[in-house]
Amino acid sequence: MIKAGIVGVTGYTGEILVGLLLRHPEVKIAWVTSQSHKNEKLSDVYPHLREITDIVCKKPDIEKLAGQADVIFIALPNGMAMKMVPKILKAGAKVVDLSADFRFKDASVFENWYKIEHSCPKLLADAVYGLPEINKIKGAKLVANPGCYATASILGLYPLVKSGLIETDSIVIDAKSGVSGAGKSLTDDTHFPNCNEGISAYKVASHRHTPEIEQALGNGIKLTFTPHLVPMTRGILATIYAKAVPAGRQAKKPVSEKGLLKIFNDYYEGKPFVRILEDKMPSTKYVYGTNYCDIAVKFDKRTNNIIVLSAIDNLVKGASGQAVQNMNLMFGLPETAGLELVPIYP
Amino acid sequence: MIKAGIVGVTGYTGEILVGLLLRHPEVKIAWVTSQSHKNEKLSDVYPHLREITDIVCKKPDIEKLAGQADVIFIALPNGMAMKMVPKILKAGAKVVDLSADFRFKDASVFENWYKIEHSCPKLLADAVYGLPEINKIKGAKLVANPGCYATASILGLYPLVKSGLIETDSIVIDAKSGVSGAGKSLTDDTHFPNCNEGISAYKVASHRHTPEIEQALGNGIKLTFTPHLVPMTRGILATIYAKAVPAGRQAKKPVSEKGLLKIFNDYYEGKPFVRILEDKMPSTKYVYGTNYCDIAVKFDKRTNNIIVLSAIDNLVKGASGQAVQNMNLMFGLPETAGLELVPIYP
Amino acid sequence: MIKAGIVGVTGYTGEILVGLLLRHPEVKIAWVTSQSHKNEKLSDVYPHLREITDIVCKKPDIEKLAGQADVIFIALPNGMAMKMVPKILKAGAKVVDLSADFRFKDASVFENWYKIEHSCPKLLADAVYGLPEINKIKGAKLVANPGCYATASILGLYPLVKSGLIETDSIVIDAKSGVSGAGKSLTDDTHFPNCNEGISAYKVASHRHTPEIEQALGNGIKLTFTPHLVPMTRGILATIYAKAVPAGRQAKKPVSEKGLLKIFNDYYEGKPFVRILEDKMPSTKYVYGTNYCDIAVKFDKRTNNIIVLSAIDNLVKGASGQAVQNMNLMFGLPETAGLELVPIYP
Amino acid sequence: MIKAGIVGVTGYTGEILVGLLLRHPEVKIAWVTSQSHKNEKLSDVYPHLREITDIVCKKPDIEKLAGQADVIFIALPNGMAMKMVPKILKAGAKVVDLSADFRFKDASVFENWYKIEHSCPKLLADAVYGLPEINKIKGAKLVANPGCYATASILGLYPLVKSGLIETDSIVIDAKSGVSGAGKSLTDDTHFPNCNEGISAYKVASHRHTPEIEQALGNGIKLTFTPHLVPMTRGILATIYAKAVPAGRQAKKPVSEKGLLKIFNDYYEGKPFVRILEDKMPSTKYVYGTNYCDIAVKFDKRTNNIIVLSAIDNLVKGASGQAVQNMNLMFGLPETAGLELVPIYP
Repeated sequence: MIKAGIVGVTGYTGEILVGLLLRHPEVKIAWVTSQSHKNEKLSDVYPHLREITDIVCKKPDIEKLAGQADVIFIALPNGMAMKMVPKILKAGAKVVDLSADFRFKDASVFENWYKIEHSCPKLLADAVYGLPEINKIKGAKLVANPGCYATASILGLYPLVKSGLIETDSIVIDAKSGVSGAGKSLTDDTHFPNCNEGISAYKVASHRHTPEIEQALGNGIKLTFTPHLVPMTRGILATIYAKAVPAGRQAKKPVSEKGLLKIFNDYYEGKPFVRILEDKMPSTKYVYGTNYCDIAVKFDKRTNNIIVLSAIDNLVKGASGQAVQNMNLMFGLPETAGLELVPIYP
Repeated sequence: MIKAGIVGVTGYTGEILVGLLLRHPEVKIAWVTSQSHKNEKLSDVYPHLREITDIVCKKPDIEKLAGQADVIFIALPNGMAMKMVPKILKAGAKVVDLSADFRFKDASVFENWYKIEHSCPKLLADAVYGLPEINKIKGAKLVANPGCYATASILGLYPLVKSGLIETDSIVIDAKSGVSGAGKSLTDDTHFPNCNEGISAYKVASHRHTPEIEQALGNGIKLTFTPHLVPMTRGILATIYAKAVPAGRQAKKPVSEKGLLKIFNDYYEGKPFVRILEDKMPSTKYVYGTNYCDIAVKFDKRTNNIIVLSAIDNLVKGASGQAVQNMNLMFGLPETAGLELVPIYP
Repeated sequence: MIKAGIVGVTGYTGEILVGLLLRHPEVKIAWVTSQSHKNEKLSDVYPHLREITDIVCKKPDIEKLAGQADVIFIALPNGMAMKMVPKILKAGAKVVDLSADFRFKDASVFENWYKIEHSCPKLLADAVYGLPEINKIKGAKLVANPGCYATASILGLYPLVKSGLIETDSIVIDAKSGVSGAGKSLTDDTHFPNCNEGISAYKVASHRHTPEIEQALGNGIKLTFTPHLVPMTRGILATIYAKAVPAGRQAKKPVSEKGLLKIFNDYYEGKPFVRILEDKMPSTKYVYGTNYCDIAVKFDKRTNNIIVLSAIDNLVKGASGQAVQNMNLMFGLPETAGLELVPIYP
Repeated sequence: MIKAGIVGVTGYTGEILVGLLLRHPEVKIAWVTSQSHKNEKLSDVYPHLREITDIVCKKPDIEKLAGQADVIFIALPNGMAMKMVPKILKAGAKVVDLSADFRFKDASVFENWYKIEHSCPKLLADAVYGLPEINKIKGAKLVANPGCYATASILGLYPLVKSGLIETDSIVIDAKSGVSGAGKSLTDDTHFPNCNEGISAYKVASHRHTPEIEQALGNGIKLTFTPHLVPMTRGILATIYAKAVPAGRQAKKPVSEKGLLKIFNDYYEGKPFVRILEDKMPSTKYVYGTNYCDIAVKFDKRTNNIIVLSAIDNLVKGASGQAVQNMNLMFGLPETAGLELVPIYP
C-alpha cells in the first residue's frame, strides 16, 4: 500500500482527495494536515464524511511528516507549495502539487501572472505538468497538477494544434464554471443570493490559466480566454473556437467534421478518461463526480470556424481526480485505479 | 458472481441500478430491458454511461429472460410488477421490486390508494418489506423495496414509536423532495422554468406513501403526511413532529434530547447506513449519491414536541441503493457490498 | 410628496425599499444612509440600480437627517433602531422599523430571545406591530415591521385561531425559506457550493420569530416552529399544522375544507394582498417579487389535522413591501400605492 | 387608451405581455386568445395572475377580433403569424409579431433556415425589424420583434461593426441562455432533473437566430453563433469576440478599451434601455425582470481581440418588453411607458 499525505485537507480539493483515496485499492492515507482546523476531526469540518473516516487534521509540520508518506498531495493556495517541496523531495517522498507553483517552465511567466516570487525556480525543470493525456507522468517525482480551466481547454485544443489545421492566432476559449471552482472561501460573488439565477464573465482576458494553456500548446500561441461563473455547483464547459487553415495552405483535404472527429479519436485512443462524442453535445452533467473529459467537435462551414466543446468536473478531472490519476502513473499503478466512478445522473 | 436482470432500465432508478451493479464486486448484469428503448444501447439513452457500459436494452420478454438471472430488479410503474413476479419466482429467480405492488400486506389498502386491482394478492404474505434496518431480509425471495418518502419517514419514526414515548395520534411528517423524485416523465411541474426558484406542497394529506409508513409503524397509527417539491435534483428531508407522552403516563424519566439520542443510537447500532448526528442538522447534501440516512432529533420543551430530521438521497437509499442493500442481504453478501460510496460534496 | 429616509440602505431590504419607493407615486426618497458605504453611490454597491438612481449613501447622522424626512425606514441589525427611534420621533418623523426592536410588547420577551437589553422599553406600548391584515396601522407613528417567517405564519394561522376550531397547543409551523432570508452577510451556510442542491433545518425549536408569532396569536399559545433553508433565492412557504377541536367541543358543524375556506375568505375579504386559493397549492413562485401572501387550507379527515399553506416573497411581503404597505396606511394613502406589482413568472 | 389584443397569450411571452400591459398607463387589454385554453380564465392557467386579472382567453378568431384592437401582439409559434397579419392590417390594426415570420427581408433566407414557406413575402418589405436602438420604429404598422439571442447579440455588435474597427469575418458569439428561452413546452432538455446542475451547447453553428443577427449587421457578415443552456430560469449573456483591424489598416488611433467604450457610449447615448458598464461585468441578474441591456467591452492586447459582454432578460428585452417598447414608439408614446421596471435583486 502506498502511504499518502495530504497538506491542506480542508479545502474542497483536499476533502475530495480524501474521498477518492479512502476508496483507492492501493493507497492508505497516512496523514492529513490543516492549519485552520488542526487537531479537529475532518468529519467535524465536513459532516458528509462522518462514519467514513475519523481522521484528525494534523498541524502542517512538513519536516516531521514528509518521511511518513510515499506521496504527498499539496492542496494549498498558490505560493505555499514551493516552500515545502524541496524538503519533501529531500525526504524521499513524491509530490503532486495542486497549486500553480510548479506549472510553469519559465519562472518569470509565473511571477508575472501570479505576482509571487518563485523561491525554487530550479525545480521547475524537473516538475512534470500533470496532464497525463499529453505528458508522460511515469517516473516523475514532482507533478504540477493542472488548473481546472486549463485541463478542459488543453484537452480540447491539443490534438487540433498538433494537426496543423487551425490558425494558431485565432483561438478563443469561452469557459463556463460552476461556483465550486472559486473554492471554499466566502466572497460576495459566491454568496448564494448574489450568484444564483445569474451568469457573468470575470477576469476577462486576464485569468491566470491563460499562460498555462498557452505553455501546454506551445508554438508561441497567444489566445483569448474568458471564464464565466454559472449558477451550478460543479462542472466546467469550455467552448473553443479556432479558424481552420484555408484549403490551399493546409495542403491536404478540406476540413470536415468527420476528419476532425478522426483527429480526436486517434489522439485519445487508449486514454481511459477522454470520451469523444459523435452525436451528442457534452454536458457537465454527463461527467459529474468523475474523472472523464467529454469532447465534441463541430465545423461551421459558413465561417470556417472549428468549435470544440470540452466538459469536465472541475473538482475531479479538474483537480483531485487528476491528482490521483497522476499518482497512479507515478507509481506504476493502473491509470484508472480508484477512479472507476460512474457519473451521478441525474 | 450473481447474475442480475433489470426490468425497466431506462427510468432513473433503473440507470442508477446499472451504475451501482457495474461497480458491485459480486454481481454481473446479465440483461436489462426497456419497452420504449428496446434494441438501443443504454448509453445512447443515458450518455453519461458511454464507455462505461455498452449494454443493449432487450425487449421485456420476462418468460424468456427470468431463467437467465439469479435476481431480477423490477423498476416499472405501479401495477406492472405484479404480472411478472409469479413467473419470475417460478423460474427460480429472486425479485427486488421497486414499485408499490408488493409493499402492502392488505391488498385492499393497496387497491384503495392506488386504484389498481391486485392480480396476485396471495403473494403479499410472502413479500418482505425491504427496509433492512427494520425488517429481516435474509432468506427473502421477494422484496418490496420501500418508497423514497417512506424510507426517510420510517427510519426517523420507528425507534420513537417503539419507545412508547410519543402520542401516536400526533404524528406529522413534513417531507421535502428534490425534483428527480417525480421521475423521468415530463410534466408541467417538473419543467425547469416552472419549478426552479419555487417551493410548493402537493398531494397534501393524500400521498400514497402515507399508508406505507403507517403499515410499517403499526399500532393502528394514522398520521398526516405532506410532501413538497424543492428546486434541487436529489434528496429528501423529512421533518417529523410528534408530541411526547406526558411524564406521568410514560412512567419513566421525562423526555430529553439526550434520552432521545440514546434511543436512536441504540436502535441503529450496527446499522451501517444510518448515521445519528448529535451536533449538526442533517442536510440532503451530506448524503448525496450515497445510501446513508442521516438522522437528528430535537426536543422542544416549550411545547413538548419531539422533532426528528431525516435525510436521504431519494434515488439511492430511497430507491436503487436500498434495492442493492436488499439484494446483498438476500444473497448473504456483506450489507455494504457495492455501496461503499462517499457523498459528493460540494 | 412624502419625503422618505432609509437608514441602512445597503442590505437587501434597504435596496429593495429604494426600488419600491422610486416607483411610488406619492413618495420621494430624501436620503439614504450606509455606515459601510458612506459617500458611495448606491448603484456602485448594487449595479442593477445604475441609471435608475444616482443617490449617494450618507453617513448615518440621524440627528441631522431626521428632520429632513416625513418617514424613516430603519433597515439595520437588531439592537440599533432602539437607539435612534426616540430621536426620530422627537424630530417629528414617523418610523417603520424593519428590525425586531419594537415588535414585542413585553421587553423581557425580546431580551430573552435576542440577548440584547432594550434601551427604551416604554416606547414598546406605542409601537404598532405592522401586520396590516391583523392590526390597525392608521395613525401609528412607530411601526414594527414583522419578521418574514412571522408574516407568513401569522397570516396563515390568525383566522384559524380566532375561529376557535383548533387545539391551540397542537400548532406546528414547518417553514421553508430561500437563502436571501439570511441577508447579505457572507456565511458558510450561504456559500453557493455549500447550500445549492441541499435542504436542511436550522435553529430547530429556537428561532426568534417563534415568540413573535405567539404574541400575535395571543391566547397564551406556545407552538413549535422549524425553519429550513431551501436552495432558491427568494420566498417563504409556511406549512402549518393544527388539530381540529373535536366535534363535541366546538359545538358547531364538523370541520370541513369548505368551512375552513369560508373562514379564510371571510377574514381576508377586502385585504388586497392576501389571496385565498381554492384549487391550487400556493407556490413561492406565484408571489415572486410582490407583496402577495397566497394561502390554501386542507383538512386531513383521517387524522383531524388542518393544514394551511402560506407563501410570500420574504423580501417583499416579508420585509420591504410590507414596510411600504405600512407607510401607505400611516399616511392615509391607498394601501396598494406603489405595490401594484405583477409576480415575475416564470 | 390604446386597445391591445394578444394572440397566443398562454405562452411565457404572452402572459408576460399581459403583466406589462396591465400596468401600462396608456393601454387597455381588449382581448387575449388561446387555442389550447379557450374560454378559460388566464389566471387558471397562470395562478400568479389571480386577483390581478380575470380576463378569459378567447378562441383565436382573428377576423372577428382584429377590429376590436388598435394593436395586436402575436405570440405564436413560427409560421402562424403570416397567416393572420394580412387580415389584421386590412382591419386597420397595427401588429407586433414576436415570431420570426417577418424578421427577414429576403423570404428565401427565412425559408432556408425555418423550413416554412412564406405565405405573404410581399409584406416583408413593409415590416420593420423591431430593435429600436438600431431601427426607426415610429410610423411602422408591422413590427417584427427580434429574437432573444439576436437582441443581445446585435446590441453588443452593432456599434463595433459600424465603427469599422473589427475584422468582419472574425466574429464569434458565444451565448448563454436561461431555460425559459426554450419556452413553455415540455422537453427532455428542460426537465428539471436533466438540466439542473449542467451546462451544454446546442444547435452549434446552426441556430436560427444566426441569419437574423447577420442581416441586422449587414456588410455581408457571416459569423459563428453558439447557444448554451444554463441552469437558471431567465437571462441571456452574449460573449462576443472579434479581432480588431490592424493599426495600419484602420488609419486611426490604435484600438483601446477607452476608445471602445466611447464608441458604445456615443452610439447608445439617449437610448434609455442600454446601459454601458465601465467598471463592472454585466450579469443577467442585474437586468432581471426589466427591459435593460447591459453592455461592457474589453480589449485583449495580447491577441488583439475585442470582447463584448451583453446581458438581457430573455423574456423582457428579449421578447415581451421589447414588444411593448416597439408599441410605444409605433404610437408615439414615451419609449419607456410601462417599462420603468426595477430589476429584481437578489
